[in-house]
Amino acid sequence: MHTKLQTLIASIKPLDQAAMDKAKARQDSLIKPPGSLGKLEDISVQLAGITGEVKNRCPKKHLLVFAADNGVFEEGVASAPQSVTLQQTINLTLGKTGACVLVKQAGAELSVCDVGVAVDVKAPDVINKKIAYGTKNITKEPAMTRGQALEAILIGAERAQTVDADVFGTGEMGIGNTTTSAAVLSTLLSVSPERVTGRGAGITDEAYENKKRVVERAIEINKPNKDDVIDVISKVGGFDIAAMCGAFLGAASKRKPIVIDGFISAVAALCAYRLAPEAKNYMIPSHASFEIGYALALEALGLSPMLAMNMRLGEGSGCPLTFQLIDAACAVMNDMATFSEGGIDDEYLENIKQGDNFTVKITHE
Amino acid sequence: MHTKLQTLIASIKPLDQAAMDKAKARQDSLIKPPGSLGKLEDISVQLAGITGEVKNRCPKKHLLVFAADNGVFEEGVASAPQSVTLQQTINLTLGKTGACVLVKQAGAELSVCDVGVAVDVKAPDVINKKIAYGTKNITKEPAMTRGQALEAILIGAERAQTVDADVFGTGEMGIGNTTTSAAVLSTLLSVSPERVTGRGAGITDEAYENKKRVVERAIEINKPNKDDVIDVISKVGGFDIAAMCGAFLGAASKRKPIVIDGFISAVAALCAYRLAPEAKNYMIPSHASFEIGYALALEALGLSPMLAMNMRLGEGSGCPLTFQLIDAACAVMNDMATFSEGGIDDEYLENIKQGDNFTVKITHE
Repeated sequence: MHTKLQTLIASIKPLDQAAMDKAKARQDSLIKPPGSLGKLEDISVQLAGITGEVKNRCPKKHLLVFAADNGVFEEGVASAPQSVTLQQTINLTLGKTGACVLVKQAGAELSVCDVGVAVDVKAPDVINKKIAYGTKNITKEPAMTRGQALEAILIGAERAQTVDADVFGTGEMGIGNTTTSAAVLSTLLSVSPERVTGRGAGITDEAYENKKRVVERAIEINKPNKDDVIDVISKVGGFDIAAMCGAFLGAASKRKPIVIDGFISAVAALCAYRLAPEAKNYMIPSHASFEIGYALALEALGLSPMLAMNMRLGEGSGCPLTFQLIDAACAVMNDMATFSEGGIDDEYLENIKQGDNFTVKITHE
Repeated sequence: MHTKLQTLIASIKPLDQAAMDKAKARQDSLIKPPGSLGKLEDISVQLAGITGEVKNRCPKKHLLVFAADNGVFEEGVASAPQSVTLQQTINLTLGKTGACVLVKQAGAELSVCDVGVAVDVKAPDVINKKIAYGTKNITKEPAMTRGQALEAILIGAERAQTVDADVFGTGEMGIGNTTTSAAVLSTLLSVSPERVTGRGAGITDEAYENKKRVVERAIEINKPNKDDVIDVISKVGGFDIAAMCGAFLGAASKRKPIVIDGFISAVAALCAYRLAPEAKNYMIPSHASFEIGYALALEALGLSPMLAMNMRLGEGSGCPLTFQLIDAACAVMNDMATFSEGGIDDEYLENIKQGDNFTVKITHE
C-alpha cells in the first residue's frame, strides 16, 4: 500500500475512553432517567471520546462535497444527462441546490471539490483537484488506475485535514454514482447486485433491470478483490467515492466527527472502515436513504440512522439535518441541570437507576 | 357532547387543496429529482395546505407543556416519587430540563400549564389552570368526571388558540402518565394492555408485570366505552392527556401545525383524531419513542415518525428537534432554484419525470 495512505491510517487513534467515561457519568447525573435522551446522549459521549473534553460545541459545520463523472453513464444507468454533474457542481457553489439551502439553514458551510468532472469546470468557487475527465466505463475496464484511486483518497483526506471545522459532512455530485456504489458494495459485502442496486434519482423498470445487469457485468469483467479496498474502488468505484472515503479517514486522523449522508456516502464510509476500522468511531450516521443498498452498508458499519425522511437526493443533504441533532446533543450535555442543581433528591435517582433496564449503548464504539 | 367542544370540532376545516397543488407543482419544479427530498417536501406541501400559502416560514415555535398528577401512582407503577411532577414542572420554567435546553437550542419557546399537579405549584411562570389535585386512582374509580375531562380539553385548546406561534409542540410532565396512556390506547384500539404498556422512565421486571395488571384492572373496573373518547379519557386517562388532546384540536382550529412528541402525546393526538378526523392534517410526527405503545398509536393515526433517537424522556423533547426539520422543509420550498433558474434543461426534467417510479405521498392527508 502507498506510504502516504499507510501514514494516514496509522494516524487514526482510538477514542479517549476516560473522557467518554466522564461524559457518561455526567449524562447519568442530569435530571432525566439515565439513557432517556437516547442517541443525543450517545453522540455527546462519542464527541467526548473524539475531543477528550466532556463538554463540546460544534459551531463550525462544513459539508465536503466531491464531484466526479462516471464512465458507466454511457450504459444508460441514469435518468439525467451527464451534463447535470457539471451544472449541479456549479449550482452547489451558487447556493441553488437542495444541499445548499439545508446547509445555510443549519448555519453550516459547504465546499465543492472537482475530483473528476468530465469537462473543465469554469466556476471560481469549485476547487479544482481533477484527477481525470471522468472514470472509464466499468463494464469494459477498470474505472481508474490504482494510483488514481490513492490520489483521490488522499485528496479527500487533505480536504478534511485542512478545512477548519468542528464537524464535517460528506456529499457528492456525479451522475451514475449509485451504479458504482452498488458495484463497490456488492463486492465488499459479497452480496448480489440485486440486493444493493436501487433506482437512484428515478429510472424506468426497464432501465432498472439494465442497471442491475450493468453492476453484475462490471464485477464480472473487473473481478475486484473484496479484501483489497483500493482494488475495489479503482476497478468498480468512482473518484467521488474514493475522495469521500479519504474524507472519513482525514477527519478521523484530525479527531473530528464526520457525518455520513446517504447511500454513496455510506459506501465510502464502509471503504474507510475497511481500511481503518478505528475511523468508524468518528462517524455519525444521518438519514436512512431510500436507496436499497444503504441499509446493508450501515449494517456492515454497525451503525443505525437517526432520520427517516425518505430522502434520496444526495449532495450531502442529510448532513445539515444531522448537524442540528449534534448541536442538540451538545446542548443536553452542556446546559441541562444535574439532579442536585434540579432539586431532585436521591430517592428518585436511586429508584430510577435500580429500575433502569435499558442499556445506554455507545453505538459508535 | 358539550356545546363548546362541538363548536371547537366544527371549527376545524380541511386543508387548502388548491394551495397544496400549487406547492406540489413548485416542489416538482425545483432542481432535484421530484420527491427526492421526501418528507421535507411532504411537510412543505402540508404547510401550504394549512396556511393557504405556497411559501411558509415558522420563526415562532412554541412547546405547550401540560403538567398533572395521576392517582394511579399509588399502585407502584412509576420509578420516581410523585414529587418529581412538581419539581420538574417548576424546572421546566427555569430552563433546567431536557426539553428546556432543546427548545432553546431550536430557537423556540415553551410554556408550562398546571392542569392537575397534586399540590399547589408555587412558581410564577407556571400557568395555573389546575382542575384538581391529581386524578383518582383508575384501578378503583374513574380518573375524573366527564365535566373535568371536557374542561381539560378546552384548556388545552385555549392554550393553542391564544399563544402566538407559527408551529406548536406538545409535551407533558406527570409521573404515572405512561400507565394512563396505555389504558387509553388499549381501550381505543381494542388491544391487550400487554401490547401498549412499556417501562416508562424505567422500572424493574416485577414492577413492569404489576404495571400491565394495573392497566388491565383499570379497564375492567371502569369499562370505558371505546367509541366515546371523552368517556375513555375521563375513566382511564389523565388531565395531561386531555389537555394535549385539546391542544391538537385548538391548533387545528386556528390552522397551525402542531408536532406530536412521544407516547403520551401520540395517544392524545389519537384522541383528537377520533374526536375530529380533520385535526390529523395539522399534526406533524416527530420521533419514534422507545415506549412500545407509540408505534401502534402512530399507525392508528396513519403517520410515521421522522426521527429514530431511542428517546423516552417526555416533556415534549422530540418537538424542538422536529421544529428544525420544519425549518429545513421551509428552506427547501422557499430558497431552492427552479430548473430554469438552475440552468438545467428540459431534457433532464423530462427524463427524470418519466423515470420516476416513486410516489410522493402526502402522508398527513
